[in-house]
Amino acid sequence: MVKGKVLVAQGGGPTAVINQSMVGVVTEARKFSHIDAVYGALHGVKGIVNEDFVDLTLETGANLERVAATPSAALGSTRDKPDRAYCQAILKSLRAHGITYFFYIGGNDSSDTVRIVSDEAKAENYPLRSLHIPKTIDNDLMENDHTPGYPSAARFVSQAFVGANLDNRALPGVYLAVVMGRNAGFLTAAAGFGRKFGEDGPHLLYLPERNFSLDSFLADVKAAEARHGRCVVAVSEGIHDADGDLIALTLAKQVEKDAHGNVQLSGSGALADLLTDAIRTKLGLKRVRGDTLGYLQRSFAGSVSEIDQREAREVGEKAVQFAMALDRDGSVAIQRVGDYDVDYRLVPLTAVAAKTRTMPDAFINAAGNDVTPAFIDYLRPLLGGGLADPGRLRGASQRVQKILGK
Amino acid sequence: MVKGKVLVAQGGGPTAVINQSMVGVVTEARKFSHIDAVYGALHGVKGIVNEDFVDLTLETGANLERVAATPSAALGSTRDKPDRAYCQAILKSLRAHGITYFFYIGGNDSSDTVRIVSDEAKAENYPLRSLHIPKTIDNDLMENDHTPGYPSAARFVSQAFVGANLDNRALPGVYLAVVMGRNAGFLTAAAGFGRKFGEDGPHLLYLPERNFSLDSFLADVKAAEARHGRCVVAVSEGIHDADGDLIALTLAKQVEKDAHGNVQLSGSGALADLLTDAIRTKLGLKRVRGDTLGYLQRSFAGSVSEIDQREAREVGEKAVQFAMALDRDGSVAIQRVGDYDVDYRLVPLTAVAAKTRTMPDAFINAAGNDVTPAFIDYLRPLLGGGLADPGRLRGASQRVQKILGK
Repeated sequence: MVKGKVLVAQGGGPTAVINQSMVGVVTEARKFSHIDAVYGALHGVKGIVNEDFVDLTLETGANLERVAATPSAALGSTRDKPDRAYCQAILKSLRAHGITYFFYIGGNDSSDTVRIVSDEAKAENYPLRSLHIPKTIDNDLMENDHTPGYPSAARFVSQAFVGANLDNRALPGVYLAVVMGRNAGFLTAAAGFGRKFGEDGPHLLYLPERNFSLDSFLADVKAAEARHGRCVVAVSEGIHDADGDLIALTLAKQVEKDAHGNVQLSGSGALADLLTDAIRTKLGLKRVRGDTLGYLQRSFAGSVSEIDQREAREVGEKAVQFAMALDRDGSVAIQRVGDYDVDYRLVPLTAVAAKTRTMPDAFINAAGNDVTPAFIDYLRPLLGGGLADPGRLRGASQRVQKILGK
Repeated sequence: MVKGKVLVAQGGGPTAVINQSMVGVVTEARKFSHIDAVYGALHGVKGIVNEDFVDLTLETGANLERVAATPSAALGSTRDKPDRAYCQAILKSLRAHGITYFFYIGGNDSSDTVRIVSDEAKAENYPLRSLHIPKTIDNDLMENDHTPGYPSAARFVSQAFVGANLDNRALPGVYLAVVMGRNAGFLTAAAGFGRKFGEDGPHLLYLPERNFSLDSFLADVKAAEARHGRCVVAVSEGIHDADGDLIALTLAKQVEKDAHGNVQLSGSGALADLLTDAIRTKLGLKRVRGDTLGYLQRSFAGSVSEIDQREAREVGEKAVQFAMALDRDGSVAIQRVGDYDVDYRLVPLTAVAAKTRTMPDAFINAAGNDVTPAFIDYLRPLLGGGLADPGRLRGASQRVQKILGK
C-alpha cells in the first residue's frame, strides 16, 4: 500500500447512479490511514490533464449522501478518449499531485484509458494503482453480469413502455419508440419487461444483435396491427442492415460523429420519424406515432432502481478495497450469485477495455423481433420495487347486450 | 332524481389519472338507490353510438381501485368530435338503454359534446343529466384553477428537466426538448419548476402564448451559452410566428391533421430536429441535442402526483353529487382555496365547451422566454411529494491549487 492521494473521475455518458460509485470511492478511501486526501477530477480525464481537481475530503458526509442520490455525474464528464500521449499527460498530472490511486468510473472506453495509464505507470516505474469502475446504461461490459446504470435506465424504459402500451390501447394505432443502445440491445430489450396480458405491447422489438430489414419490419408491423388492431414497437437506435450499415444512416443524410468515431444517434428524432413515415406510406396505416426516448433514459430524476443504487455504491467501495487488499490494477466486475445477489471480482483491464458485450442468443427469439422469457428472468431482480402493476376492467364477461343492434 | 342508468365515458388524450375520475363516478353513483346500473362506454362517444357498453356494477371494488391507479383510459378513448347528428345518435343509444345520467370525462372538445347532447335531450324532452368532468394535461379549460391530469404531466416534465439539466451540466452543450401543449404553455412552463441553483437550466422557455421568432431564439441561445458554457431549452410544440403559423409547420413539409382539424404535432421529432439544426448551422455550436418528450408526458407509469390522483377522483365523485343534488347539467370546475386546498363548482357547459384557457401574463416574464416566480408558486402544491432534490459538490471552496499550471 503506497502512501499518497486518491483520485476519482467520471467518464462517458452519465447515469442515474454514477454518483453512488464516486461516493463509494470517497467514503471507503477515507477509512485507510495511508491515504492523504481524496481528489475528484472535473470532467474526467480532461480535468486530470488540466489539474482541475477538487478536494473531496472537504465534503461533508451528509452532502456526499445527497450527491450520491442525485442523477448524472457530479464531477462532470467527458467524451475524450485519450491516446498514449494524452495518457502520459494524465500520468504527469497524477505524479505532480502525489496521486497513487486512480479510480475511473465509466464504460469500455474509460476502461481502455485506465489500461493505457496503467501500462504507462508501469513503464515509468511510478507506483500507481489504476482501477476501472463499471458504469454504462448500455450494459455492454465484458465480464459483468450487468453494469451499474443499466438497471435504472432499464426501469425507465420498461415503465415508459408500460404507459405507452396503455395509451396505445386507449387510442389504437401504431406507436414506435427508439431506445438508446448503439451495439447492445439490452436497454431496448427492457421495453419487453412490463407486459402482463397476452395482447400487451410492445408487440415487436428490434435489437442491434440482429440485422434489420425494412421489408421484414413492415411485414411484422402489418401482421401485429392486423392481429391486435394496434401495434407498439421498440427499436434500438443501433439497428443496422445486413452490411452493418446503420438504418439511421441509410435513411438520414447528415450525421455527426463524436470524438470516438461513433456515429451520433441520440439527440435526434430522425430514426423514429423515418420508420413511422415508412409505416404510413408503405402500409397505409393512419394513426402512426414515433417517439425517441432520448436523454431521459439516463437522466430522468425519479426512476431509479434501489438495487442499482446499492450496487453502484458497492463497485466504488470494492474498487478501493481491491486496490488496497490485492495491490494490483484491474476492473471491478459484477457477478450474479444466488437468486438474487451479487459478488464482485477484480478482472484484468484487458478483459474489459474497449470490448463490447452484446445480448446472448438465449435472450432473443428465433424471429429476431422479441426477447425470450430467459431475458425477462434475467432482468426482473435488477429493476427494484414499486413498479407499475396495471389493472384493467374485466370487460369481456360484462358486456351489455346491444338493443339497437347497430 | 330520475330513476335509470348511469353512463360514464372517457374522451381525448389519456392521462395518468383519468381512471380515477371514472372510478369516482362508478363508486359514487352506486351509493344512490335510484341508480339501476353504471355502464361504461368503450372508446368514448364512438362506443355510445355503437352500444359498446360494459356493466361496471359487475366490477369488484378491489379491481376498480387497481384500475384507478393505472394510467391511460381503461374504457378506451376516441378523437371523434361529434356534430349534431352524431349527438342525436348518442341520445338514441342512451334512451334505448334507459340511461338518465351521462358523464363524459375529457377536455374542451369533450365538454362541447356534452353541451350538444344536453341541448338535444332538452329539445327531445328526454330526462337526461349530462355532465362534463374535466381532464387534460394541457391545463387549458376555462373556469378551472387547473385540470386533473396536468399535475402528473407537469411532474413528469419537471423531473425530466431536472435530470436533463444535470446531464447537460456533466457534458456541456445545448440541449433542447419539445413539450406538449398546442395552445397553452402550462406544461412547457413546468420545465422551469425544478431549478435550484442560479445556473440551473432550463435557461430558456418558449410558450405558445408569445410569438416565436427564430432570430430572437438564436440570439437567446447564443447569450445563454456564452454565459453558462451550456444551455438547456424547453420549447412548446405549439410555438408559432407573428402570423400565427406554427413553427413546426413552417419548418416541416408534411403535416397530418386529426379529426378535430388540429395539426398533428406529437409523435414526431421534427420540431426539435429543425431547431437544433438551426442552432448548429447558424450559431456554429457543436454539441447540440434535441429531444421530444412525446407520449411519455401523459402515459409514463411511475410519475404521478398524489394530489392529482385525489382531485381526479373527487371530480368524478362531485359530478355525481352535483347531478343528484343540483339536478342540472354542467361542467365540474376546480377552484383553489387556501394554501393549498380545492373546492368544486358546477359551471354552465357553455362556459367551458370548446374554449381554451392560456397562461396568464403574470406567469410569463417580460422577455417572453421564461416563467415568473408567480407561476412556480402556482405549480408547487400540485406536483405531489418525493420530488428530486439534487445535491451537488461544494467544489468552489475546495479547488486544489494547480502545480503544473497549465
